[in-house]
Amino acid sequence: MIIIMQAQASEREIDKIKDSIISLGCEVNEYQNQNHRILGLLGDTSKINIDLLKGNRSIDKIVYVNEPYKKVNRLFHPEDTIIKVLDKTIGKDHIAIIAGPCSVESEEQILEIGKEVKDAGASFLRGGAFKPRTSPYSFQGIGDSALDYLKKARDIIGLPIVSELMSVHMLDRFVEDVDIIQVGTRNMQNYDLLKELGRIDKPILLKRGLSATIEEFLMAAEYIMLGGNENIILCERGIRTFENYTRNTLDLSAIPIIKKKSHLPIIVDPSHATGLWWLVEPLAKAAIAVGADGIMIEVHNNPSKALCDGNQSIKTERFASLMKSLKEIARIENRIL
Amino acid sequence: MIIIMQAQASEREIDKIKDSIISLGCEVNEYQNQNHRILGLLGDTSKINIDLLKGNRSIDKIVYVNEPYKKVNRLFHPEDTIIKVLDKTIGKDHIAIIAGPCSVESEEQILEIGKEVKDAGASFLRGGAFKPRTSPYSFQGIGDSALDYLKKARDIIGLPIVSELMSVHMLDRFVEDVDIIQVGTRNMQNYDLLKELGRIDKPILLKRGLSATIEEFLMAAEYIMLGGNENIILCERGIRTFENYTRNTLDLSAIPIIKKKSHLPIIVDPSHATGLWWLVEPLAKAAIAVGADGIMIEVHNNPSKALCDGNQSIKTERFASLMKSLKEIARIENRIL
Amino acid sequence: MIIIMQAQASEREIDKIKDSIISLGCEVNEYQNQNHRILGLLGDTSKINIDLLKGNRSIDKIVYVNEPYKKVNRLFHPEDTIIKVLDKTIGKDHIAIIAGPCSVESEEQILEIGKEVKDAGASFLRGGAFKPRTSPYSFQGIGDSALDYLKKARDIIGLPIVSELMSVHMLDRFVEDVDIIQVGTRNMQNYDLLKELGRIDKPILLKRGLSATIEEFLMAAEYIMLGGNENIILCERGIRTFENYTRNTLDLSAIPIIKKKSHLPIIVDPSHATGLWWLVEPLAKAAIAVGADGIMIEVHNNPSKALCDGNQSIKTERFASLMKSLKEIARIENRIL
Amino acid sequence: MIIIMQAQASEREIDKIKDSIISLGCEVNEYQNQNHRILGLLGDTSKINIDLLKGNRSIDKIVYVNEPYKKVNRLFHPEDTIIKVLDKTIGKDHIAIIAGPCSVESEEQILEIGKEVKDAGASFLRGGAFKPRTSPYSFQGIGDSALDYLKKARDIIGLPIVSELMSVHMLDRFVEDVDIIQVGTRNMQNYDLLKELGRIDKPILLKRGLSATIEEFLMAAEYIMLGGNENIILCERGIRTFENYTRNTLDLSAIPIIKKKSHLPIIVDPSHATGLWWLVEPLAKAAIAVGADGIMIEVHNNPSKALCDGNQSIKTERFASLMKSLKEIARIENRIL
Repeated sequence: MIIIMQAQASEREIDKIKDSIISLGCEVNEYQNQNHRILGLLGDTSKINIDLLKGNRSIDKIVYVNEPYKKVNRLFHPEDTIIKVLDKTIGKDHIAIIAGPCSVESEEQILEIGKEVKDAGASFLRGGAFKPRTSPYSFQGIGDSALDYLKKARDIIGLPIVSELMSVHMLDRFVEDVDIIQVGTRNMQNYDLLKELGRIDKPILLKRGLSATIEEFLMAAEYIMLGGNENIILCERGIRTFENYTRNTLDLSAIPIIKKKSHLPIIVDPSHATGLWWLVEPLAKAAIAVGADGIMIEVHNNPSKALCDGNQSIKTERFASLMKSLKEIARIENRIL
Repeated sequence: MIIIMQAQASEREIDKIKDSIISLGCEVNEYQNQNHRILGLLGDTSKINIDLLKGNRSIDKIVYVNEPYKKVNRLFHPEDTIIKVLDKTIGKDHIAIIAGPCSVESEEQILEIGKEVKDAGASFLRGGAFKPRTSPYSFQGIGDSALDYLKKARDIIGLPIVSELMSVHMLDRFVEDVDIIQVGTRNMQNYDLLKELGRIDKPILLKRGLSATIEEFLMAAEYIMLGGNENIILCERGIRTFENYTRNTLDLSAIPIIKKKSHLPIIVDPSHATGLWWLVEPLAKAAIAVGADGIMIEVHNNPSKALCDGNQSIKTERFASLMKSLKEIARIENRIL
Repeated sequence: MIIIMQAQASEREIDKIKDSIISLGCEVNEYQNQNHRILGLLGDTSKINIDLLKGNRSIDKIVYVNEPYKKVNRLFHPEDTIIKVLDKTIGKDHIAIIAGPCSVESEEQILEIGKEVKDAGASFLRGGAFKPRTSPYSFQGIGDSALDYLKKARDIIGLPIVSELMSVHMLDRFVEDVDIIQVGTRNMQNYDLLKELGRIDKPILLKRGLSATIEEFLMAAEYIMLGGNENIILCERGIRTFENYTRNTLDLSAIPIIKKKSHLPIIVDPSHATGLWWLVEPLAKAAIAVGADGIMIEVHNNPSKALCDGNQSIKTERFASLMKSLKEIARIENRIL
Repeated sequence: MIIIMQAQASEREIDKIKDSIISLGCEVNEYQNQNHRILGLLGDTSKINIDLLKGNRSIDKIVYVNEPYKKVNRLFHPEDTIIKVLDKTIGKDHIAIIAGPCSVESEEQILEIGKEVKDAGASFLRGGAFKPRTSPYSFQGIGDSALDYLKKARDIIGLPIVSELMSVHMLDRFVEDVDIIQVGTRNMQNYDLLKELGRIDKPILLKRGLSATIEEFLMAAEYIMLGGNENIILCERGIRTFENYTRNTLDLSAIPIIKKKSHLPIIVDPSHATGLWWLVEPLAKAAIAVGADGIMIEVHNNPSKALCDGNQSIKTERFASLMKSLKEIARIENRIL
């Protein structure tokens, strides 16, 4: 940590800060440039209460030399994290394809779509039971019974299942029934939920918040990992920008950045990022080309009858042809799909 | 609702959509411009499943004529909502000043600050018990005991108290002990929490999400109001933009817009919006000038010793002098402060 | 065009608007929903002064059914535009690779880099003569002599040359000496310059503005095309968002959108988008996978000695290996590179 | 300037950087924290080529201790700049009100509006002659004759006139005829134009770019001031964000920030920021309350007949009543209006 003092800071104010830092066992490297005194901190700075420092009006700027995340940081965990779910693998060489409808609508629907995406090569089946919707008047998911249908689909089809948890009240049920617990974009900073998820050992699929920086996204994962759960899959799904032709702007640069900064696997959801089915295929291909560890796609057997998000779902036939292209790109990148 | 069909849509596709709309009891006004068929819907369109329509690939665009929010809409509730808390009033002519420390640190601290802000003219005392923090390594609030200290402060000082609820598990405690329950920016779309808050009748202070549009903000309030709780105070606290000199960009335009669109009171939090104490005073004055129904300000008796957000807190002396300016502006606007 | 009247609009106000529209030869399809009168316009609406309509306070909203751009619109020009420069081709099946240093620094430098990028498979040589820099204290390019060196490089190496025009004063010189004239992101809405470029027939490489929507980007191209110059290559180079790990956020969704909406070729510049050399390779691959008609990359023989933007330049060796990957992806997409 | 080396940087790489800095006459304060070597630079760092440093791959981060702007920096010019135009004054205690139509439409129109705004208390008359429009099909201003009408209005009414320059070709005409030359938001980084404006001594009204940070805004002013023209008035007019209810988001926080960082006067344009006439009045009041040195407002005698931007213009009657409120707020702030 480097502290740049205000140009007007007095010797007394500077000494007060130095003393408080030294009293915590750190050392201070100090020098003066034209206008500002600069304090470089050495030693274990973790005991320093940064919030207290920030409130000090004689300080101009605080610069962090080290990243604020520890557990998720590749610096202290150089090898890629590999997550195993039933017989499937995510991370390092293995690319995961998570496909299925936005919402589970009926047993028949999830079974039919599930079989088709499996045949096309998907490794996980997704389906929403509880849906976070901007409007209270929109379809909110069929709830508990969706989890029953998903379990049945897993038993019959053999794909691990992924579904979104919206409430801590439902945690036990999800731990029991679901293979990967998804945390939606609107809950990325629901710290109450993140702390609970740190206490279990189910894999968590954590989606990036609409307006979360990459650092904040990694800090949300840090909350879960600090609690003891190391099975985290990150998911880029678009950020909010001024461009409103697409629902959000898919930030593919985040993939190589997160792979450099963290050991956790990172996948891409082009369906929610854009909200437009005809953008899903080119962006899924781009996601594999940029190095993502997987993609999550909404697939529906009849999008214009979908109870939710039909406009961003692709048909099962198109999904099958997309899988062929993705496999070719994965091969160029020497990855297993 | 107006449906603009794709330029390539066939008669068969158009008829299918018209039939499904008519079967729900609506009428369709239809015409053709150069390239597109346009369907104008009449009658009670609330039965139409918009999610289903959106999934239809022969549709180019759907235009909403009416706003998606009903309960919070001024169109159906022209007079201003006025909220009463103990002997205080928020809304219409009454401007509310909510002041206090970011975090409750001790009984002495909250009592001392509470007395000072009351003397200066504040109408509510705020104080955080549980703090949502980007980093799990940051101070998370002193928790339950903070609620005890706040209650004591209310009993001694006589100001109603405001504190942030982060978890549904704590709802009963907050209903019991707190006068206004705050929902933080990161939980604005925590629908599980919003639905629970709809079931109680405590006043809710709902903060705008970092990347929420005004419409989404009002839709979040609609969730609470639809549940039956009509005591909602909205709070603008900055949105996330590319400008990073300030923590967020305070969107003061939102105030007159929300006052036009909704009957709910809307206040401004300049402390969290900017993160810089020296911006709080000019922006608080601007907030009153633009027509806000109140402001929420972080005040600390010793900001450089604050355990949290000291850099955005103003000192109690400055708060007192700010109150004088605010009163003068309120007087020009013919409002009671 | 559809006009939605204010809920409070009087019959007199509505009639006034209808009369003015009918007097221009258009027809009006009119109907009333619950709260609003809706006017659908038929016929040639181009004579209607939209600015005048927008100023009318009895109008709530104006909805455009057709896109505002005509010349660049694929609807009226379904086949892809193909641009030929010397013996090179951009658009449709042909992917163009434009490579070279940010700034031309000397004759030796541009000759050496030019030969290396040509050997690796680049089809165009880029190099800045005049540099738009945020700071007046930063290196501004070596100017005129850079154009001389570029011409010499073209004559010796045989690659067409691309350079950025910053001033209308230099237009004649650029028309004379450069093969593709680049318009930088900060000048995308310099209408004075765009109009001048419409009068020549040199190919123009038009970069998307930092905060330009896709529609505004296409409208800037419309300015040039309306003047008579149809040789326009669009270039996505990142938009400004809150994420500041990268300089800008590369918006790869814009590629398939622009290819759907317009017939003009669109390429991607991953170097300026991110500002970080180690992101250039994954994003260049993603750009080809998403369907771009080319990429523009900064390549330097010695980035740490580059007088400008060294941090976003890749070395010539890496460029050669990147070209191999790009060719493999292009082959999957059945495109010529 | 502080240089944080990569965690992996070798001694050889570090020495190379130190040597190059020392060879330019600077000193280096060096220390090592847990993972990174840190170099603090002392002395005159202006000779260091930062672009070269940035290209060095063994450097992790460069931190600026001092602001990059010099001439516009309040640190080196503590007193407020006061600009005098004819008998009017902008800056320090004096608040300037610039009012008039978006576009000059006729001699009668500008004379009539000019008289009315003067009577209501405006100190400057604005009017567009050449209009920068997103669409080439929109009204582009009546051009040269508008300047003639503006001059006539100045001579008859006695208010200094403000108009926007779009092309360097027109510079001589503007220097001759206009009292304050406006640079529009889309030209804020048209460096060719900024450099020309540095060579004259007319006051320049520089609008903030749609996506310009405060620092970039000040750097654009630095371009003009470095050329020798110190008569610069800055203008905040909204930045581009995801919120699209308003055309842009007015960033009022920028006012106290710019007043702290720079000695130049800063005014606010609420008309272009929002695009909605009914937001102009509350935001104009907020602008004065937050400390702006003036406002620029579009006023029209018949907004629904305005050839441009009628939707954001207020009527002359409303302007007169707004002026009364502004004067009351100015009085509270002890400023002259």
